Amino acid sequence: MGGQAETVSTAPERTGDLARRFAEIRGLSLSLAETLTDADATVQSMPDASPAKWHLAHITWFFETFVLRDHLSGYRLFDADWPFLFNSYYEAEGARHARPQRGLLSRPTLDEVRAYRAHVDAALLDALPRLSESCGWLIELGLHHEQQHQELLLTDLKHLFSCNPLGPAAWPAASATPSTEPAPLGWHDGPVGLVEIGDDESGFAFDCERPVHRHYLAPYALADRTVTNREWCDFIADGGYTSPGLWLDDGWSWVKREGIAAPLYWRDGESGREAFTLAGWRALDPAAPVTHISFFEADAYARWAGARLPTEQEWEAAARHADPHAGNQLDRAGPVSPVPVAAEEGLAGLFGNVWEWTGSAYRPYPGFAIADGAVGEYNGKFMNGLYVLKGGSCATPRGHLRASYRNFFAPEKRWQFTGLRLARSL
Amino acid sequence: MGGQAETVSTAPERTGDLARRFAEIRGLSLSLAETLTDADATVQSMPDASPAKWHLAHITWFFETFVLRDHLSGYRLFDADWPFLFNSYYEAEGARHARPQRGLLSRPTLDEVRAYRAHVDAALLDALPRLSESCGWLIELGLHHEQQHQELLLTDLKHLFSCNPLGPAAWPAASATPSTEPAPLGWHDGPVGLVEIGDDESGFAFDCERPVHRHYLAPYALADRTVTNREWCDFIADGGYTSPGLWLDDGWSWVKREGIAAPLYWRDGESGREAFTLAGWRALDPAAPVTHISFFEADAYARWAGARLPTEQEWEAAARHADPHAGNQLDRAGPVSPVPVAAEEGLAGLFGNVWEWTGSAYRPYPGFAIADGAVGEYNGKFMNGLYVLKGGSCATPRGHLRASYRNFFAPEKRWQFTGLRLARSL
Amino acid sequence: MGGQAETVSTAPERTGDLARRFAEIRGLSLSLAETLTDADATVQSMPDASPAKWHLAHITWFFETFVLRDHLSGYRLFDADWPFLFNSYYEAEGARHARPQRGLLSRPTLDEVRAYRAHVDAALLDALPRLSESCGWLIELGLHHEQQHQELLLTDLKHLFSCNPLGPAAWPAASATPSTEPAPLGWHDGPVGLVEIGDDESGFAFDCERPVHRHYLAPYALADRTVTNREWCDFIADGGYTSPGLWLDDGWSWVKREGIAAPLYWRDGESGREAFTLAGWRALDPAAPVTHISFFEADAYARWAGARLPTEQEWEAAARHADPHAGNQLDRAGPVSPVPVAAEEGLAGLFGNVWEWTGSAYRPYPGFAIADGAVGEYNGKFMNGLYVLKGGSCATPRGHLRASYRNFFAPEKRWQFTGLRLARSL
Amino acid sequence: MGGQAETVSTAPERTGDLARRFAEIRGLSLSLAETLTDADATVQSMPDASPAKWHLAHITWFFETFVLRDHLSGYRLFDADWPFLFNSYYEAEGARHARPQRGLLSRPTLDEVRAYRAHVDAALLDALPRLSESCGWLIELGLHHEQQHQELLLTDLKHLFSCNPLGPAAWPAASATPSTEPAPLGWHDGPVGLVEIGDDESGFAFDCERPVHRHYLAPYALADRTVTNREWCDFIADGGYTSPGLWLDDGWSWVKREGIAAPLYWRDGESGREAFTLAGWRALDPAAPVTHISFFEADAYARWAGARLPTEQEWEAAARHADPHAGNQLDRAGPVSPVPVAAEEGLAGLFGNVWEWTGSAYRPYPGFAIADGAVGEYNGKFMNGLYVLKGGSCATPRGHLRASYRNFFAPEKRWQFTGLRLARSL
Repeated sequence: MGGQAETVSTAPERTGDLARRFAEIRGLSLSLAETLTDADATVQSMPDASPAKWHLAHITWFFETFVLRDHLSGYRLFDADWPFLFNSYYEAEGARHARPQRGLLSRPTLDEVRAYRAHVDAALLDALPRLSESCGWLIELGLHHEQQHQELLLTDLKHLFSCNPLGPAAWPAASATPSTEPAPLGWHDGPVGLVEIGDDESGFAFDCERPVHRHYLAPYALADRTVTNREWCDFIADGGYTSPGLWLDDGWSWVKREGIAAPLYWRDGESGREAFTLAGWRALDPAAPVTHISFFEADAYARWAGARLPTEQEWEAAARHADPHAGNQLDRAGPVSPVPVAAEEGLAGLFGNVWEWTGSAYRPYPGFAIADGAVGEYNGKFMNGLYVLKGGSCATPRGHLRASYRNFFAPEKRWQFTGLRLARSL
Repeated sequence: MGGQAETVSTAPERTGDLARRFAEIRGLSLSLAETLTDADATVQSMPDASPAKWHLAHITWFFETFVLRDHLSGYRLFDADWPFLFNSYYEAEGARHARPQRGLLSRPTLDEVRAYRAHVDAALLDALPRLSESCGWLIELGLHHEQQHQELLLTDLKHLFSCNPLGPAAWPAASATPSTEPAPLGWHDGPVGLVEIGDDESGFAFDCERPVHRHYLAPYALADRTVTNREWCDFIADGGYTSPGLWLDDGWSWVKREGIAAPLYWRDGESGREAFTLAGWRALDPAAPVTHISFFEADAYARWAGARLPTEQEWEAAARHADPHAGNQLDRAGPVSPVPVAAEEGLAGLFGNVWEWTGSAYRPYPGFAIADGAVGEYNGKFMNGLYVLKGGSCATPRGHLRASYRNFFAPEKRWQFTGLRLARSL
Repeated sequence: MGGQAETVSTAPERTGDLARRFAEIRGLSLSLAETLTDADATVQSMPDASPAKWHLAHITWFFETFVLRDHLSGYRLFDADWPFLFNSYYEAEGARHARPQRGLLSRPTLDEVRAYRAHVDAALLDALPRLSESCGWLIELGLHHEQQHQELLLTDLKHLFSCNPLGPAAWPAASATPSTEPAPLGWHDGPVGLVEIGDDESGFAFDCERPVHRHYLAPYALADRTVTNREWCDFIADGGYTSPGLWLDDGWSWVKREGIAAPLYWRDGESGREAFTLAGWRALDPAAPVTHISFFEADAYARWAGARLPTEQEWEAAARHADPHAGNQLDRAGPVSPVPVAAEEGLAGLFGNVWEWTGSAYRPYPGFAIADGAVGEYNGKFMNGLYVLKGGSCATPRGHLRASYRNFFAPEKRWQFTGLRLARSL
Repeated sequence: MGGQAETVSTAPERTGDLARRFAEIRGLSLSLAETLTDADATVQSMPDASPAKWHLAHITWFFETFVLRDHLSGYRLFDADWPFLFNSYYEAEGARHARPQRGLLSRPTLDEVRAYRAHVDAALLDALPRLSESCGWLIELGLHHEQQHQELLLTDLKHLFSCNPLGPAAWPAASATPSTEPAPLGWHDGPVGLVEIGDDESGFAFDCERPVHRHYLAPYALADRTVTNREWCDFIADGGYTSPGLWLDDGWSWVKREGIAAPLYWRDGESGREAFTLAGWRALDPAAPVTHISFFEADAYARWAGARLPTEQEWEAAARHADPHAGNQLDRAGPVSPVPVAAEEGLAGLFGNVWEWTGSAYRPYPGFAIADGAVGEYNGKFMNGLYVLKGGSCATPRGHLRASYRNFFAPEKRWQFTGLRLARSL
């Protein structure tokens, strides 16, 4: 922790600003669950996913444990039995409820969890003026952590509702606007030679984005937009899912074992292909970016297209001057979904819409070291078997992203808003 | 179905009586779920168990499908999508929601299921005077079916709450009365020679209880009561769970694989052994019958005690003149639990309290034939790998039991209120 | 053991006779492995099967342990490390090599195992005149045990070779004789009322066949022969494997999970159906009894045919006066296979050819008790989840069978020579 | 293939040299199996491993298929059924025997496989003068391929014998020489800045080592030798296997799931720690490099030691001027084992002894492309979830290694001769 705190090289935000951001972000979480029943918020549809109620409680537990319990003398836990329930994976924090059993917690109720949130929020806001600067960093970490869980809450909810034969909608659909398919792919050369990669510590970043370091890039080009549903349909029609030569060996095993033949959430409806969304089943928009694909699928598509996935360094170098707050990102509760991207000068839609799989294994940067203590478990211990994704999605809260941001998932996972942008060596 | 109906040899109950029983039994189901939240009623804690909401809807589906849809012309389904959700295992009724996924149905809500019940109940009671006699038999079957699910609802709920580290209580505990341990086991000889086994068709019975037939019994004795918790503690203390020679081979594999060392729901509390109940964690009552044991455990205990399990025929012959409506059975919603049995002349506590494992595999009676049609799937297709249990439990609705009643579970299952009574050959 | 020995009510065979039978039976085992390479005799094709080498060593271990070690003072083990390798499942004999790892024992070699056999045989024959009477019973048990493993050696070898794409033959095929299909099924009534079941202790029998006891039989008829391959083809053509209504629930799950669509070892060859045999792939003989079917398949076939499986008591009562040494049984090493049965008065082919599945769960007879000590583990501990088979097969050594003989396998197993004979209630 | 052939920029070896190398390498394979029985060479101890007989046949199939069948007109296959058996994973070559079933092939026999080798060798040597230059490249590829299988044959055999409770020795132990523990670890700075990585095409290399490319290295140091058994014992004594904070999350799950507490092949003998070797169980040599550890263990050890694993680029840059033919490598059949390394100037023991885990995921180099055709499946399709190892082992045939050589295994695998060398950032 101390090590982490030291890495905050900028002055802390003033208390007032922090309090305002705290209220805004905490409020968004609650609004995401507003249309849910207690049952909706309780059920876990697969071990990868967590119940909405659990998300709401876990991110509160983070503040209660690492800020209030550790730094506010005299603070009493809301309920001494709850830390066991809502610790996610911090070994240093002791035993915890097994992850695949999160969906068995019909108690506490959603309302009790809301009361927990109110209690912790009040205590934290009350204490805020008296807390040390390093607590400011912890609160900042907690808010970014909460934003991550906002995205997970949405993707986990989508998965849950997709398992229900009734196909419920979390929100009514926005009115459909006719969408136009984008122009054919264009290519843009990226920066080459020695580039700087990683966060330069001018603002908040997670430990895995540091330290900033040099990396050598050979000449390459990136596609000016992500792959669309229409293009993915061409891949299917051309035998993409039945040609072993296109696939990594593990990917091909996965395709055969799981009977994969399309992105997650696709089905053949009576009047054409449909995709499940947070507004229920909807006609597939051919102009929108393909999403809910695995790394294996992205990699096979790229081989089919005579291209490859970008490395994380290529992507980051090319995105360094793009605005990370632009694009289709999460502003408020609703049925978020990728949308067609308007052409623009250079690389369109780098941020928002869909996470872009890279070909880079999620491994430590040169000079990276895992911090001591529980917070040190945040990222480093997951650096095995995963791939880096860049750019964020329609479900990422606006304000959360950076060019150096490294998201990471296992190569067969599909329930996040994942897509791809092609690259090629020059 | 026709074949089944023909087996009802007695005249149908008058409509008024049937309506009254219908209302009573349907009402008890609702009252069992009265203290549950929507979330409590939604979650599935293991594939063997079903959510309370699912139970409430499934037993309603049974009436809607086999009575209203099939016999009431012009009846419109409450919701055409729901049969897919609430068919349990009837292949003849078409595709259905996968059993292990029942817990993902956060929608429909518990209140919507209550509305479904009200709709079907009103339609059925309205139509009752006009329905044929064979419908009377179907309604009777539906009511006994509903009673089975009442017991399952309670045992499934108990299992769910036992998985919650908070140990919630479905109902407050009844005031504890000091209990007295029973006298040492006594033995009573059972009827020998040719006996009649099975239901003689003087009232309702399930297909698997028929036809009545002769069976030859060699001399034997039954214990005058079931085994108690105190006695089970002696078994544990004497190495019962660590002596392979006491166990069936499959049982010993199960003990090692699952790390079994006590009945389900036991734990060591600070002031002694505790057991989980529908009123939360409670001190273990040494005088009460042991419960939540598997067939494997019952069989090993019997071998340890120098005895054996009774056969289903021995049990039934010995119980023929006992009152199946007596004993600790389910009368109303509440934290049902086995209670110490007062000594009585002969065999005490045959009905109610705990289901008694027999040594008999659940197989068809001589002359048994599976009926045609969906209702024919009721029992016969499960006659593999299971053992017969007799006598009912504290969670069996009073009025549901008979001496010929055959319950059946796999030998490793423990979440029902299962216990044992010793037997020996003479 | 003592208890077992006491049950031998007849006088022991004279030493000379026993020595002769010992030499004959031990010799047959060796001859069964004569055409095998060391590798053939080493490999294990599935956990259910054991390598030929292991069989040869295990049955030798039985004599070495329970006769020589226990009753011949001064006997030294051939190799002190081998009992760990060749104990099958006797918990009382201590730790043992895991069953699924039997196929990893490339050492000792087949020749070393032959030397082990020679060593033990010489020691036993030398000591025979000095051994006590109860040892005579143990040797008798050991010989019957060895005969069981002779059958397993053949069926395990057949399975192993069937897994080899080269389809090797253990022996050359016998010259084919044109076979004639039998007449349509006829039916014969069996004995009814109180019958005696089980072994009456006039000769050798396994513990599970005892004690003899009374059983009541209601009127029934048995088919006069077993079901043929031709008839099985009709079952397939009529949708037998695709009609859930014909199957037990567990059976239907098994069919779907394993993709079952025909008996084991069937394939479609270029000129029609073929079956794998100990002489390699051969054209299917429509006149021969169907074999390598599971209980689930037998039960489904019987339902399809409007019949049922016999109970073990019905079969035994009907077979009481048949000659158990007649029929197609194992006399010498070679490619044994079921053959068409010539019509005869009454029930044809009760013994030999194929084991006949009964509808009876393998459970203890009234009055059965597991003996103390290691030999007590022989049968009793397996009495869960299995079904009884009667009558023996073409791979059962002649001299091994009795009407009271109870073989037993799990309902999905197919690698034994299993078939079925229909029954019906009258 | 064409693409591959073009990458051979040097002139082909003269036929005579190639014939000589062919005979030498092919001969070594045979000598490795010389002491094996047919059974030893047939059994497969786990899905990762293959039988010795299969290795011998598979590497022959490679020559028969890609050289003789494809380039020698009129060549007739030794046996048309064998390609199905001995294709490893080439999808483009059609269906093949399932990998986990390789151990079921008791036929063909080891001698038949030797005859296959003789047949193919004679045909190839006979045709050699007439084959095209690109065939020279294919033969070269086949020889390097065969060397890889020589190492696998030894490690697979070691695993098989380790599973046998008798602990057989493949060869007698070499006479033990007293070993001296090395001096404490020293550190040497590696080359920094822009370095060249990958094979420069001056000789044979696998596709995954290409193309040569620039890589930027920040300052770092490497340990001057690999970690020893003594040091590993300190790690164990200090709670290395029971401290979750030292482990990657997947590694910690693996430790708990598999009960890992020491390197593979260690046991506690009566007079201290022992390790299984190709000469059977031997006392552990504290001075020798630790081996048979997983990536997870290597990574945890490095964290415990306050260090980290080197990247593959750091290792390669530091090894560029070391002699890849030096060190403890495979020269002839025998019980190869890592030996203590004598101190030397700089980095000792880079080549031979134990493969050194790096922290680099096995992913394509910049500009890498999978070649078309079956040979294109050689490496690229495995680039998921694996880590790069460098430097070779005591079981790697001398002549096979290069600084650019990339070996790769999954992070939990331990049956190769794997060890580690520490690194740290400066």
